Amino acid sequence: MSEKKKLALIVEGGTLDKLYCAFILGSTATSMDWEAHLYFTFWGLQALVKGAMEKAVLPGDYSKMEKQMRERLKAMKYPSPYEMLQRMKTSGLLKIYACTPTMQMFGIKREDLIPEVDQMVGASTFLTIAAGADVTLFI
Amino acid sequence: MSEKKKLALIVEGGTLDKLYCAFILGSTATSMDWEAHLYFTFWGLQALVKGAMEKAVLPGDYSKMEKQMRERLKAMKYPSPYEMLQRMKTSGLLKIYACTPTMQMFGIKREDLIPEVDQMVGASTFLTIAAGADVTLFI
Amino acid sequence: MSEKKKLALIVEGGTLDKLYCAFILGSTATSMDWEAHLYFTFWGLQALVKGAMEKAVLPGDYSKMEKQMRERLKAMKYPSPYEMLQRMKTSGLLKIYACTPTMQMFGIKREDLIPEVDQMVGASTFLTIAAGADVTLFI
Repeated sequence: MSEKKKLALIVEGGTLDKLYCAFILGSTATSMDWEAHLYFTFWGLQALVKGAMEKAVLPGDYSKMEKQMRERLKAMKYPSPYEMLQRMKTSGLLKIYACTPTMQMFGIKREDLIPEVDQMVGASTFLTIAAGADVTLFI
Repeated sequence: MSEKKKLALIVEGGTLDKLYCAFILGSTATSMDWEAHLYFTFWGLQALVKGAMEKAVLPGDYSKMEKQMRERLKAMKYPSPYEMLQRMKTSGLLKIYACTPTMQMFGIKREDLIPEVDQMVGASTFLTIAAGADVTLFI
Repeated sequence: MSEKKKLALIVEGGTLDKLYCAFILGSTATSMDWEAHLYFTFWGLQALVKGAMEKAVLPGDYSKMEKQMRERLKAMKYPSPYEMLQRMKTSGLLKIYACTPTMQMFGIKREDLIPEVDQMVGASTFLTIAAGADVTLFI
């Protein structure tokens, strides 16, 4: 039985800002030796489709800021969302869940998703994890 | 005194994806014999106005995906958000709260809202419920 | 050691509705003698730049409702987001944190921010606060 602290996130957003929020929180948690449980649904789930995360953009309301942001990220050698996800994975503390109702709604299959996905589950699995977590957020 | 687990949601979003997120979580919770406390504010509250929930759409950034999503939902015979809300209600475990500051800001009256609303309350009621909940999310 | 209840918010949104949600929850918490810890990131952090909060608008999808909302707020003599923030501050129970990764991504410096900011910190500080909080939300 794990005695580690736990972060549980529902990642509903799929825009660049939301993915960075989720992954900065996830990376920080795993670097503090917490478990990080990330449950991807709706636009977040769609970002797990192979090749999709690399195409994530800012929300329409903020698109005029995207060029400046990308230039700074490049100058800072900041990792992309997918690079952050892959680094977190190496900690062994990150679990990625794909929301099965979303997969049905949008006709997405297991083989469409990146290989880092650990499990395809429904909301009851997430609620059970979240009830035992120290911090739970909907992003 | 209840010993059931509790889900507490602030439903701020009023788009189709956010309503489905809230109601899938709420339905899942009540099917697990948890209490579900849903506090509707801003665009979520506006979705409680009679006839409004049926008109909910995807956010502008995703509107090009709406046709495909609706076709799949129809093929799956997936319930509409309002049907999900009504089914949850029959569990006796769902409480719906309307945010009074939002009602004042937008000139919405009790008689404008669907009959399933249990109480019109301010944020202090929500915070007290959330402090005793097992999972709390802002949607 | 404090025995007060604690509210921990990540304020990621910077639109008028999201700022009101954060500040109504924060004001309510401090009026109940809770501590309120507000961590501003992305568009929320940008709203802490001097002069920016006064220019906050509704999201593009809802901009057609802004005129009516502002007229009602004025008629109700409802405080602006910045006025709410300043009133909360006088309680001595509010702490405002600026997200350092966001400041780097957008080239924002301490002197660009309103004086009410208490600390510039990363996500690990927020996670530690949130793990000890009674209610935690991502707005």
